[in-house]
Amino acid sequence: MAETVNLSVDEVRSLSTEVLIANGMSDTNADVVADVVTQAEADGTHSHGLFRIPGYVSSMRSGRMDGKAVPEVNDKSPGLVAVDSRGGFSPPAILAGKPLATEKAKSQGISVLGLRNNGNLNALWWEAERFGEEGLICLTMSTSQSFVAPWGGNRALFGTDPIAFACPRDGKPPMVFDYATSASARGEIQVAAREGHSIPKGWALDKDGNDTTDPAAALDGVQLPFGGHKGNAIMIMVELLAAGLTGGNFCFEAQEQIEKFGANDAGPSSAGQVFILIDPKGFHTTFLQRVEGLFDQILAQDGTRIPGDRRYANRRRSAIEGIECQAALYQEILDMRSR
Amino acid sequence: MAETVNLSVDEVRSLSTEVLIANGMSDTNADVVADVVTQAEADGTHSHGLFRIPGYVSSMRSGRMDGKAVPEVNDKSPGLVAVDSRGGFSPPAILAGKPLATEKAKSQGISVLGLRNNGNLNALWWEAERFGEEGLICLTMSTSQSFVAPWGGNRALFGTDPIAFACPRDGKPPMVFDYATSASARGEIQVAAREGHSIPKGWALDKDGNDTTDPAAALDGVQLPFGGHKGNAIMIMVELLAAGLTGGNFCFEAQEQIEKFGANDAGPSSAGQVFILIDPKGFHTTFLQRVEGLFDQILAQDGTRIPGDRRYANRRRSAIEGIECQAALYQEILDMRSR
Repeated sequence: MAETVNLSVDEVRSLSTEVLIANGMSDTNADVVADVVTQAEADGTHSHGLFRIPGYVSSMRSGRMDGKAVPEVNDKSPGLVAVDSRGGFSPPAILAGKPLATEKAKSQGISVLGLRNNGNLNALWWEAERFGEEGLICLTMSTSQSFVAPWGGNRALFGTDPIAFACPRDGKPPMVFDYATSASARGEIQVAAREGHSIPKGWALDKDGNDTTDPAAALDGVQLPFGGHKGNAIMIMVELLAAGLTGGNFCFEAQEQIEKFGANDAGPSSAGQVFILIDPKGFHTTFLQRVEGLFDQILAQDGTRIPGDRRYANRRRSAIEGIECQAALYQEILDMRSR
Repeated sequence: MAETVNLSVDEVRSLSTEVLIANGMSDTNADVVADVVTQAEADGTHSHGLFRIPGYVSSMRSGRMDGKAVPEVNDKSPGLVAVDSRGGFSPPAILAGKPLATEKAKSQGISVLGLRNNGNLNALWWEAERFGEEGLICLTMSTSQSFVAPWGGNRALFGTDPIAFACPRDGKPPMVFDYATSASARGEIQVAAREGHSIPKGWALDKDGNDTTDPAAALDGVQLPFGGHKGNAIMIMVELLAAGLTGGNFCFEAQEQIEKFGANDAGPSSAGQVFILIDPKGFHTTFLQRVEGLFDQILAQDGTRIPGDRRYANRRRSAIEGIECQAALYQEILDMRSR
């Protein structure tokens, strides 16, 4: 058996949809979650792709996650939309709140969409891109579970607290960046542990609170914020906006809940997420041209790039060349089509 | 003559006000700018304190800055306020837009205040604190002039692109952080050059694009973003929001304008600044308690602190012990009371 199989983008989508529905997800929710999985594969961010399907299936089979959750959308005030994800997967909850939040941003100039009771964390770039496509600037942040010590401390408190930003462009897909505000994604340490190489100093402390470059010791200890005390301040902001503001769980609260359930693969963590949405046409009409003016200046220097462009290049290539999937993972997912 | 003089907070305020008015600033504007200078001294952030007065005076004497500028406030839409600073000092322009932006945030749930034609960059923590005192969450970003290369590049394009965030607290002054999104403030490199010590690797490149730990070579070259490619993405966001959105100058545009005027000490750079303002009571009523819950968790770990607490401690001490000012600077400012 070959180590990898080549799947078309459509094959990834139909397989994902089929398996999610077969394991208890509603058709509506499955369309959305399968789109995230498919786009993640196409864009080369495999950590949010097919790799996630077994966890999603397991969490639905055990009843920890409700694949049929119907999010509740609340029109809180002229600029605020609150969505209760009801313990379901977050992308359908985000799309449920999107029309009202988009309309508010366009009529008011700015709006905020807050989610609580999110069951799982997803690819923030996918979510930010959805709003960027509507012509909106989007800043989003999310909580998850505790892996990262506050600056100066040595015990896990913050999550990897991702932040993503989308900016619409003229005749092009939006510029989107998305990253953990920890020094590294957790998956990067896991990969180093599996492949037996060391990690850079500054990523993590061991369980005694000492600097470590040993990935196993790091996974047993705590991760650190990116960029020292500055990244630490950003992480505090993410916790306050994504959870404090929305009523979702801070990462340390989500961690307590996850440990109570004794499961790590996918929710329910009752996490929070916030989207700040701005209509760039509100102040003046030349925003899109000004964006290109700045990007031209960046690209005029050798060695630079616009954030997200590598993902878009992957996406174009995947549409032509298909997606390589580990054969064992592919078989595992195929076997999940029946319960 | 002693090397320093001890001034009371009130003495700093009255001296600053007197000198600014004597050199062409309107009473209204002088009250505000002197408050920034005074608070900066009291909080121990001397780089925005009396140290700035000679530059402010020089820019008004030469006519580069208009101390009597009356900012123009525009009610753009239910959630948007645009202020044209008309080449004046930015703090009075911010306070001019503050009542309308605050009212909008409280009635709509969220608002955005955008400034353009800012003449000088100021202490963002001072500005964020003003909105935090109103019970609002405040995220602000500003452009200035070009000192920082984009990630992968080697020529100045971005500014030090500061970002500040205020979060209201229950019965306490707001939590406020404020920092450059470059690896270091420019002043930190200048201090190293003056004192003859090296700077950490990662702060700057020399003029040939090579890593340097020599502060003189760094000042002759370019600074770098904090936190590598992640900080670079944050800097792009700051440029897009503070300038692209508001119509203020990107840092590279401000640089061109400053070089045309041939002056670096204070504007006019026509910089931009953005404030995103959120009423935390919009989603639920327990925000302030939740903030304290998170901060208690942070402080439960030895070695941690809440951002901004050191400044507040300085402020309490300055009220009792007064402020040490270099005698030469004090004399220079005294001499500026008459033109």
